[in-house]
Amino acid sequence: MGEYSNFINAKVLITGGLGFIGSNLAHRLVGLKAKVTLVDSLIPEYGGNLFNITGIEDKVRVDISDVRDAHSMHYLIEGQDYLFNLAGQTSHLDSMSDPYTDLEINCKAQLSILEVCRNYNPHIRIVFASTRQIYGKPQYLPVDEKHLLRPVDVNGINKMAGEWYHILYNNTYDIRACALRLTNTYGPRMRIKDARQTFVGIWIRNLIEGKTFEVWGGEQLRDFTYVDDVIDAMLLAAKDEKACGQIFNLGGNEVISLEELAKLLLELNGRGKYLIKEFPGDRKKIDIGDYYSDFTQIKKVLGWEPKISLSDGLLSTLNFYQKNIKNYT
Amino acid sequence: MGEYSNFINAKVLITGGLGFIGSNLAHRLVGLKAKVTLVDSLIPEYGGNLFNITGIEDKVRVDISDVRDAHSMHYLIEGQDYLFNLAGQTSHLDSMSDPYTDLEINCKAQLSILEVCRNYNPHIRIVFASTRQIYGKPQYLPVDEKHLLRPVDVNGINKMAGEWYHILYNNTYDIRACALRLTNTYGPRMRIKDARQTFVGIWIRNLIEGKTFEVWGGEQLRDFTYVDDVIDAMLLAAKDEKACGQIFNLGGNEVISLEELAKLLLELNGRGKYLIKEFPGDRKKIDIGDYYSDFTQIKKVLGWEPKISLSDGLLSTLNFYQKNIKNYT
Repeated sequence: MGEYSNFINAKVLITGGLGFIGSNLAHRLVGLKAKVTLVDSLIPEYGGNLFNITGIEDKVRVDISDVRDAHSMHYLIEGQDYLFNLAGQTSHLDSMSDPYTDLEINCKAQLSILEVCRNYNPHIRIVFASTRQIYGKPQYLPVDEKHLLRPVDVNGINKMAGEWYHILYNNTYDIRACALRLTNTYGPRMRIKDARQTFVGIWIRNLIEGKTFEVWGGEQLRDFTYVDDVIDAMLLAAKDEKACGQIFNLGGNEVISLEELAKLLLELNGRGKYLIKEFPGDRKKIDIGDYYSDFTQIKKVLGWEPKISLSDGLLSTLNFYQKNIKNYT
Repeated sequence: MGEYSNFINAKVLITGGLGFIGSNLAHRLVGLKAKVTLVDSLIPEYGGNLFNITGIEDKVRVDISDVRDAHSMHYLIEGQDYLFNLAGQTSHLDSMSDPYTDLEINCKAQLSILEVCRNYNPHIRIVFASTRQIYGKPQYLPVDEKHLLRPVDVNGINKMAGEWYHILYNNTYDIRACALRLTNTYGPRMRIKDARQTFVGIWIRNLIEGKTFEVWGGEQLRDFTYVDDVIDAMLLAAKDEKACGQIFNLGGNEVISLEELAKLLLELNGRGKYLIKEFPGDRKKIDIGDYYSDFTQIKKVLGWEPKISLSDGLLSTLNFYQKNIKNYT
């Protein structure tokens, strides 16, 4: 805990705080004795779930609001020491069928959050959750931060803009912000109802419910980060001045094909079945093939690297959902 | 004209059609016997000016409307063969003081234009006017299309998103679009009332009015494209299938410092005076230092290169404003 002593009594706001990563971050910060406020819209299609804060519900303040509501954001941001800005529309398909909503959340709301910080709380520290998705189809592997951004969906384009607003406000107005480009993140409290957040979610749901799950393609290589490792990266980025204005890739130590991942899940679960399927047409066009990231930069600057092996992480995840499946379906 | 025979009787829509580049394009297309519709909001701070279509006013259709008006855009886009999508908010400073308006025009309206094309006119060809500004401060020179995008103002971030929406819709929905990243463009019909469009504008106004003009810094290197050369690039990009889904830099054959440019203008004008001034504070943070572009790619693929020398271009520009100054101040 010594290395995170910055957060003792610190006032921390987490947007998307009832979601997968936000709620795991909240659990950690409560343990670190921070004063935590969670803002979440609880839009049913997104990642927010009140069950995610079971055990800390009396130790955090929850504000059901939307980052698009500039007035409530103003009220919530004033006086905070840290902002973990994780709220976002994350679905590829939703961004294509309704590009405007994606724009409102991933661009306009980000601008209004930053404007509030600039005007009313310029000393705040901000960590923005960006995504490897903005790289699009990799031109080389592993992908480092020098790789061109070539997003393949509206969501990727808007997240790219949202990330750069943060960097711009850091560089222009000195309101210390940085961005982490997350790769596939998994762990307890992720959405498993469907594949909106991650395909790993729906795989695990089917596995636990004894149903066959579908693996689209199967040969694509990916890396994965367990959510606790992502939380470490966020806390390191929030407390270290060297992170300001920077963009860092996160990544995983193991590179694995989707079919190998499916096999590993079956093995850890002791039973289960999957089926290899062709990519559906509407997904094929935004398929990026293989992806795994080079996270040398954050390792060098902040000393971060993933600590949880894929087997350990998946096992914890399976255990969590075996116990709590009814709260996530 | 043979090389541009595609445009005979073609239905062409130009957004920002009463502006600097849009109106020059309209003059050219009328000469090529295209059926031209111009849409422009005539917002006083932007580049639109009804005088810009003097001589062709009876040969084009003008619709005073705003690209943010999705309904009028739907009506205007239906049935067109070509769309030159040039409307935009272009001021750095305005984008910083009012980021939302910049977002509405440079992002949201672009999405709605592309949605109209996708739903009601998927066979249209689109050329989008992007900008070298999205590169930010160059990491190497000359800047080619492989250079990372690191925009230094809200306008740059939103133009980056606007450009990528076009590429995305090309790649995903096959509605053939491409983007040209313009460098400093100058020539007749640019805004010279102030420095909102280009500093060259206000220099020329002061020169013609016998006033001393200010050169900020002076040592920065830049390249310039005469507007007729930009029009050539746009027409080539619109008619050549090889342009679809591509992003091309435009550029100039001469690289020149701002002070050398000021001297050249004085020499061509026969008289005048300038003053070297330090960058104002609010500009300093978004100053990008030297910039000039590598336009090898468009030369290779479309056979474009600038034909007008800087001296010839500036002389034509000076002549135009000496005759028409009262319509631009």
